Amino acid sequence: MKRLGVLLSGRGSNFAAIADNIVQGRLTGCQIAVVISNKADAAGLVAARERELKALAIEARGRKRAEHDAEIIAALKEHQVDLVILAGYMRLLSPEFVQAFPERILNIHPSLLPAFPGLDAQEQAFNYGVQVAGCTVHFVDEELDHGVIVLQKAFPVHEGDDSQALAERILEQEHIAYSEAIGRVLSGEYRVVGRRYVRNAK
Amino acid sequence: MKRLGVLLSGRGSNFAAIADNIVQGRLTGCQIAVVISNKADAAGLVAARERELKALAIEARGRKRAEHDAEIIAALKEHQVDLVILAGYMRLLSPEFVQAFPERILNIHPSLLPAFPGLDAQEQAFNYGVQVAGCTVHFVDEELDHGVIVLQKAFPVHEGDDSQALAERILEQEHIAYSEAIGRVLSGEYRVVGRRYVRNAK
Repeated sequence: MKRLGVLLSGRGSNFAAIADNIVQGRLTGCQIAVVISNKADAAGLVAARERELKALAIEARGRKRAEHDAEIIAALKEHQVDLVILAGYMRLLSPEFVQAFPERILNIHPSLLPAFPGLDAQEQAFNYGVQVAGCTVHFVDEELDHGVIVLQKAFPVHEGDDSQALAERILEQEHIAYSEAIGRVLSGEYRVVGRRYVRNAK
Repeated sequence: MKRLGVLLSGRGSNFAAIADNIVQGRLTGCQIAVVISNKADAAGLVAARERELKALAIEARGRKRAEHDAEIIAALKEHQVDLVILAGYMRLLSPEFVQAFPERILNIHPSLLPAFPGLDAQEQAFNYGVQVAGCTVHFVDEELDHGVIVLQKAFPVHEGDDSQALAERILEQEHIAYSEAIGRVLSGEYRVVGRRYVRNAK
C-alpha cells in the first residue's frame, strides 16, 4: 500500500474526491496517511477527521518558510509518505521541500499549462476567450505551476458559459484527473525524458 | 459570394485545404479572389495557378514594411476581399495593415494559444511535455499570435509521438479547423465581447 500525504489550505475538494475514489475502489493500491493544513480552521481538516483520517494543523502564520516547511517535511516523513498531494495548498514550497520529495509532489492546476499559471486561472482563461479549457496535473518543481506534466484534460468552453460555470466544469474534471494521475505515478510505469512524462509501453 | 484574399509565403498547405473545401462544397458561400505571396518562388503560387486562381507575387525583399504592406492592401482592396486569410505568411503585419481590415484578418497557429506563440510552436509544445496539443484560428491584431480566438481544436499527444508525428497531426487538424472558422466568421453570427468570440444563439 502506497501512502499519500495531502496538503491543503481550504475545503480541499480535490482531497475529498481522492478520498472518495479510494473508498469506492476507483483509485487502488494507496491510502491517505496524513492530511496537513497550514491553516488550523481549514474545512478540509474537518472533512479529513470525519473520514477518520489523520489530520494535522501546522500553522504557517508568523513563522519563517524554511522552519514551517521543515516541520511539514518531518510530519510527512514520520507518516512514511510515498507521494505528496497538493490539494489547494496556498503556499509556495521552498526548494528544500521540493528537494526532500524529488518527483514525489503532485499539484493540480485549473488550466492547460503553460497557459494561465498563477491565481484565478479559470477566470484568466475565460476572459482570454479560449475555446478549449482544461486542467493539468504536474510534478512540483521550484517554479510556479511549472513541473513535468503527468496528465491534462481538455474540454470545450460552452457557448452559454460564464466564468463561474466554466470554473465548476473545470473542478469536476479535476476530481477525475487527479486520481487518474496519482494512479499513473504510483504505478511507476513511466519515465521522464527531458521534461516529458512518457508512459512505458505495455 | 464572399471573397477571400489569401496571403502565403511557402507551400500554403492551409490554402490548398481551404481551396479544396470550397471546391468540394464543405465551405460554402465564398470564393478565393486572390492569392498573394511575398516570395515570388512560393510553391503556393504555383498551386494557386494550377487551380486557376488569381496569384500575385508582391516581393518584400529590400522594401520597407509600410510600402510593401500598402501594395498588398491595395491589391486586396482591388480584388474586393471581404476576409484576409493568412496561410503561412511569414511576415508581421504593420498596424496600418491590421487597421485596414479590422477583425477581417484570420490566422491559424499550431498550438492552443496563448501557449506557445511564435515559431516552431509544435516543437515547443512537444518539448514542454504537454499531453494535449491543438491549433487556434484567431483574428489578427497588432500583437503576435494574440487576437480574438475564433476556434480551437484540441487532441491528445500520443504515447509514441515524436515532434514530427505531432506536427503532422496538428497540421491535419488545421486543415479542418481553418475552413470551419472561415465559415463561422463569414456567417456573421457572432459578436466579440471583450476579447471573447461568442456565437449568437440560434
